[in-house]
Amino acid sequence: MSSAWGNNIKISVFGESHGNGIGIVIDGLPSGEKIDMDKLLIQMARRAPGKDKTATPRKESDTPEILSGMLNGFTTGVALTAVIRNTNTRSQDYGNLLTKPRPSHADYTGFVRYKGFNDQRGGGHFSGRLTAPIVFAGALCRQILERKGIKISAHINSIGNIKDDGFNPLEIDSELMDRLSLSAFSLINQSVEVSMRNIIEECRLNQDSIGGTIECAVTGMPVGVGSPMFDGVENVISSIIFGVPAVKGIEFGAGFDISKMKGSEANDPYTYKDNRVVTTKNNNGGILGGITSGMPIIFRVAIKPTASISQEQDTVDLSTKSDTKLSIVGRHDPCIVPRAVPVIESAVAIAIMELMMGANLI
Amino acid sequence: MSSAWGNNIKISVFGESHGNGIGIVIDGLPSGEKIDMDKLLIQMARRAPGKDKTATPRKESDTPEILSGMLNGFTTGVALTAVIRNTNTRSQDYGNLLTKPRPSHADYTGFVRYKGFNDQRGGGHFSGRLTAPIVFAGALCRQILERKGIKISAHINSIGNIKDDGFNPLEIDSELMDRLSLSAFSLINQSVEVSMRNIIEECRLNQDSIGGTIECAVTGMPVGVGSPMFDGVENVISSIIFGVPAVKGIEFGAGFDISKMKGSEANDPYTYKDNRVVTTKNNNGGILGGITSGMPIIFRVAIKPTASISQEQDTVDLSTKSDTKLSIVGRHDPCIVPRAVPVIESAVAIAIMELMMGANLI
Amino acid sequence: MSSAWGNNIKISVFGESHGNGIGIVIDGLPSGEKIDMDKLLIQMARRAPGKDKTATPRKESDTPEILSGMLNGFTTGVALTAVIRNTNTRSQDYGNLLTKPRPSHADYTGFVRYKGFNDQRGGGHFSGRLTAPIVFAGALCRQILERKGIKISAHINSIGNIKDDGFNPLEIDSELMDRLSLSAFSLINQSVEVSMRNIIEECRLNQDSIGGTIECAVTGMPVGVGSPMFDGVENVISSIIFGVPAVKGIEFGAGFDISKMKGSEANDPYTYKDNRVVTTKNNNGGILGGITSGMPIIFRVAIKPTASISQEQDTVDLSTKSDTKLSIVGRHDPCIVPRAVPVIESAVAIAIMELMMGANLI
Amino acid sequence: MSSAWGNNIKISVFGESHGNGIGIVIDGLPSGEKIDMDKLLIQMARRAPGKDKTATPRKESDTPEILSGMLNGFTTGVALTAVIRNTNTRSQDYGNLLTKPRPSHADYTGFVRYKGFNDQRGGGHFSGRLTAPIVFAGALCRQILERKGIKISAHINSIGNIKDDGFNPLEIDSELMDRLSLSAFSLINQSVEVSMRNIIEECRLNQDSIGGTIECAVTGMPVGVGSPMFDGVENVISSIIFGVPAVKGIEFGAGFDISKMKGSEANDPYTYKDNRVVTTKNNNGGILGGITSGMPIIFRVAIKPTASISQEQDTVDLSTKSDTKLSIVGRHDPCIVPRAVPVIESAVAIAIMELMMGANLI
Repeated sequence: MSSAWGNNIKISVFGESHGNGIGIVIDGLPSGEKIDMDKLLIQMARRAPGKDKTATPRKESDTPEILSGMLNGFTTGVALTAVIRNTNTRSQDYGNLLTKPRPSHADYTGFVRYKGFNDQRGGGHFSGRLTAPIVFAGALCRQILERKGIKISAHINSIGNIKDDGFNPLEIDSELMDRLSLSAFSLINQSVEVSMRNIIEECRLNQDSIGGTIECAVTGMPVGVGSPMFDGVENVISSIIFGVPAVKGIEFGAGFDISKMKGSEANDPYTYKDNRVVTTKNNNGGILGGITSGMPIIFRVAIKPTASISQEQDTVDLSTKSDTKLSIVGRHDPCIVPRAVPVIESAVAIAIMELMMGANLI
Repeated sequence: MSSAWGNNIKISVFGESHGNGIGIVIDGLPSGEKIDMDKLLIQMARRAPGKDKTATPRKESDTPEILSGMLNGFTTGVALTAVIRNTNTRSQDYGNLLTKPRPSHADYTGFVRYKGFNDQRGGGHFSGRLTAPIVFAGALCRQILERKGIKISAHINSIGNIKDDGFNPLEIDSELMDRLSLSAFSLINQSVEVSMRNIIEECRLNQDSIGGTIECAVTGMPVGVGSPMFDGVENVISSIIFGVPAVKGIEFGAGFDISKMKGSEANDPYTYKDNRVVTTKNNNGGILGGITSGMPIIFRVAIKPTASISQEQDTVDLSTKSDTKLSIVGRHDPCIVPRAVPVIESAVAIAIMELMMGANLI
Repeated sequence: MSSAWGNNIKISVFGESHGNGIGIVIDGLPSGEKIDMDKLLIQMARRAPGKDKTATPRKESDTPEILSGMLNGFTTGVALTAVIRNTNTRSQDYGNLLTKPRPSHADYTGFVRYKGFNDQRGGGHFSGRLTAPIVFAGALCRQILERKGIKISAHINSIGNIKDDGFNPLEIDSELMDRLSLSAFSLINQSVEVSMRNIIEECRLNQDSIGGTIECAVTGMPVGVGSPMFDGVENVISSIIFGVPAVKGIEFGAGFDISKMKGSEANDPYTYKDNRVVTTKNNNGGILGGITSGMPIIFRVAIKPTASISQEQDTVDLSTKSDTKLSIVGRHDPCIVPRAVPVIESAVAIAIMELMMGANLI
Repeated sequence: MSSAWGNNIKISVFGESHGNGIGIVIDGLPSGEKIDMDKLLIQMARRAPGKDKTATPRKESDTPEILSGMLNGFTTGVALTAVIRNTNTRSQDYGNLLTKPRPSHADYTGFVRYKGFNDQRGGGHFSGRLTAPIVFAGALCRQILERKGIKISAHINSIGNIKDDGFNPLEIDSELMDRLSLSAFSLINQSVEVSMRNIIEECRLNQDSIGGTIECAVTGMPVGVGSPMFDGVENVISSIIFGVPAVKGIEFGAGFDISKMKGSEANDPYTYKDNRVVTTKNNNGGILGGITSGMPIIFRVAIKPTASISQEQDTVDLSTKSDTKLSIVGRHDPCIVPRAVPVIESAVAIAIMELMMGANLI
């Protein structure tokens, strides 16, 4: 039904790739929160296209205009609205989409869902461009969360079969998190960057694309946030993360690997450390019964390879009801994983904001 | 905040393991739906404990009493309520839980969340017993969905490292689905049952437990159900699935494996078959842009090993603020995966009901 | 769609007048709140039928059984469920309702809404009996609110043309509120009780019924609770109050009379009193821009006369599609206003709970 | 918490009177609905200020820019966003508001609610200007509803003590509704216009203001829309209507007058007319048990006099914590009732859209 999300904080994302503009309304923010717009724009720049050969050469300023909810640099407490104008659109690139759906895109499902009336230019509302408003909102929420001691950081966990190192699930270095959160190609072990860039470049040259995974950590969470059953931390995070295009899976803590473990191996024993209850493993990713344990929240998401590839593909012609071939032109990222990193961080920031507000902690 | 879920259909799960009773209110059901209570009880029996050595010996009749919303075997259209009385409770088994939190349980997080006032006997509201009302609601929804041609079926995808065969993602045999949906140990390839039972029994004898994965399929979905961004099929399903205790991950279609693929490999090409648009692969698990493609919805969940093991474990004593040991007594499943199969099917049935109602199709 | 209400606190009311039972699930309550059950039952007794000739002679114990959410007299913090068994039902009294809808009842609209499948015995889910769970929840919330210094009290403002005195909108005597909140026939000016009882008795003897109004006050509200536009105090209160059967209007402060005033007369000037900002009038009923001003919240509701009267009335026969006459038998209140007083108080208590939780004050 | 509303259709209103812009996101609209923008702008013009001496001389073009959700004149089915730029703002008029709250405005309550960070210029988010987005959304919904045979129309029911005629509750002339819906001073009995204008002009000259009531009718509703308890038609309508500034009361059908009636007088008898079940009175305003009866929905709202009057008033100085006087300068309507008519129609249109979608009828 909807591109709105949240109960305590309500976001409403709008826009289509080649329409007049995209943006977001964020309702429920606390008043009096100072927002550093330069810092926020750094996050938007991390997501923005056109930086290098791993991404689409489409360039956009993506500078959000604040229409409401901010005064003199502080949140006013009512709905905060940001609009990003669409410029540099080349709609003619998409002239054939109405009849020939691109494989693994939402062209066909969107066409049926909206009875052919949806704006299909550039993917319309399904475009990855719609993650820009999410980054806006998330980067804003992160500034509020940081004042509560909460940090959020993600890295490229893998591109194809090339893996980065993982987060230390028991304790994550604060400087590492800061470094990752400013990087356009976020890696814990930066020595894998060359191989990752090579595989992406190889895919680009082959008119192909490649998928990957992202690992994200949230540190500084108080114990006791979240609720059993359907308002648990995992539920809330996953319900927003699957709003990021191309995400096909999410796992918390040891995730799918925990399914192969025995209880004696998987269980996270408790101990006192500096008078605080901590666990000596963190296979549960900081969440037990839907509620934070105080350990780092850690999760990974699976990102599928960019569906838009230039290679000729099999598809159908909906107008003639027959099979046909499709060669996608236009500008596309051979790998969206690097640009998805700040998007995942941002989506989670909104989720954590929702959870902290639900716990009356913001 | 809450154990309520849904917008078009609203469920509210209540109860604690050793309280007076547990149950569910289902609001928003269509009126005039005939409910076959015997068929529904079969699903509840699949989940119920005490059947064999893979499960806890706690026996309960688990017969739900319908308090409202049904008349002469048909839904009346107003809130349908089922209550299951708690009997056969042995609360003394849990006498030490208030001070020594069980590793990987919600004892500690629940204690902090509820300031020590939550009912901790038998896990209270966090108990796996609370999945009984979910199975009640899901089994009821499935009967309505089946009249629309929608089938839901799951199987034990793996126990530890032992794997069942997977569903054919392009077309799933209807009789197979029927067989799985009646089984207490659901397997596609029944030849792995012995090895799976052996590893479970081995864990039981070692006072240990084991995890696993479950694969679930939904067939017969119309094209065009679900919405972009936050009301997508993946969002809706994951937001309820993480309400099932012990789930630590979910992946749709090729899931985490898609992250290793190239676009040319991952993309699902279209073709016409019997005048219908279908895909020749189904790496997207029947969902594109959050919207059903008409292909089977396929997903897998990771289930952690039962946290309650009898082996001595490290924990803390919250009263003395010191480290201590814990030996859990009481009755526990060495592996909850077999019993979780109908729970996953049921949770998804509720999610599909929500989605179909959102599309005005129910 | 639904008999569920609330975002911060979620109630789900269930049941039908002549089914197995009615009740309520209250999700989102804070943990550790001591509930005095005797005090709670006093409120339920005020609403219960069979006390005197102003009400239906149907007698019911209406003793709620707590299924979940309470332990040793304290809320556990998870869904609190109360069930009230239906006893003393005489369903044969309603044998003709399926074909001859009772004027001004929901028989016809419910029949169409639920395609004839709703339980029409005794009004089913539309029965005034469904206000018992609301009183349960409201009486419980009031105990929590009272600890925050918030009092809620209502009185019979009028029966037909006979009027009670109104609340002093600037300051309401705490002892008066206590007296009203324990009364079964709540009046500020008790000298009008005889005339009110006389007109009710006259209606009873004439097989007729009579309407009235109820005035309700909430004192002790902090300044700044509620939000502009759709989450304002008036929106939240009215959205639950219209859930009480027979309510046809609501007005806040001077209400409809303010429409006849000039601004100079209507405006509430500010002054300092005991170092607090107060207003010297309260035509806005304690609410400005949807937000509490700290002055008493005051509102009145219009209650229609009991629709069930024994006089012969014109109706239709839905089976023969022709006009016909109807004489309602069964037991009915000639005036529901006295019994509606605790229902209004309770519904508002739930609304105030929602608002206080939204302001992080509970 | 929020300026968002709705479940099936979700609106999110944003903006502050003297900020960059105001607007609305409407999520959940059906796709493929043709929108006549000229017709929509006529409704916005009815609400716009500066037309004559009954209203504030502030002139604004109020032309909404559509950012998303429309293509070639049709709804695309995803979030539709309209932005109205703020121009012609004279913020210096409001220089003293931070310290001296205007009586009966939200200055004080908003100041406390938002800890002084809200944008108080021109009333900020509390400004009547925020009704422009509501009219936009409502006028859009009305076009969709009209295709389903549903008409919505309101008139000035009274200004001070001067009353217009009321709607015939049994059948409302379609041409009358059309005329009212195009009028800037909507009256059934146009002979009262002069007296009404006179009293408004008199108030203006006396630096005073005057209140009034608005009556609204919805015709063409199918039988069976709405639900018992909290999703009833009255609940849904009132929850949005109290979002219109200055509304202090709402009554349905005979409203507060029904409280003075006997059941024999108040009840609405059924009869067959042209093979349809109708009632021969309509004291219930087309709603029984929260559900439409097929008779016209009729309700009235009380509008308080404009709080901003130029007469000197008593208030406090929050900075010095002492009593003081205030003379409001700036441009204000001596009576907002005429301009509120299209706002009420629009708010109800959104409510009816929500209800029709909930009934799967749109």
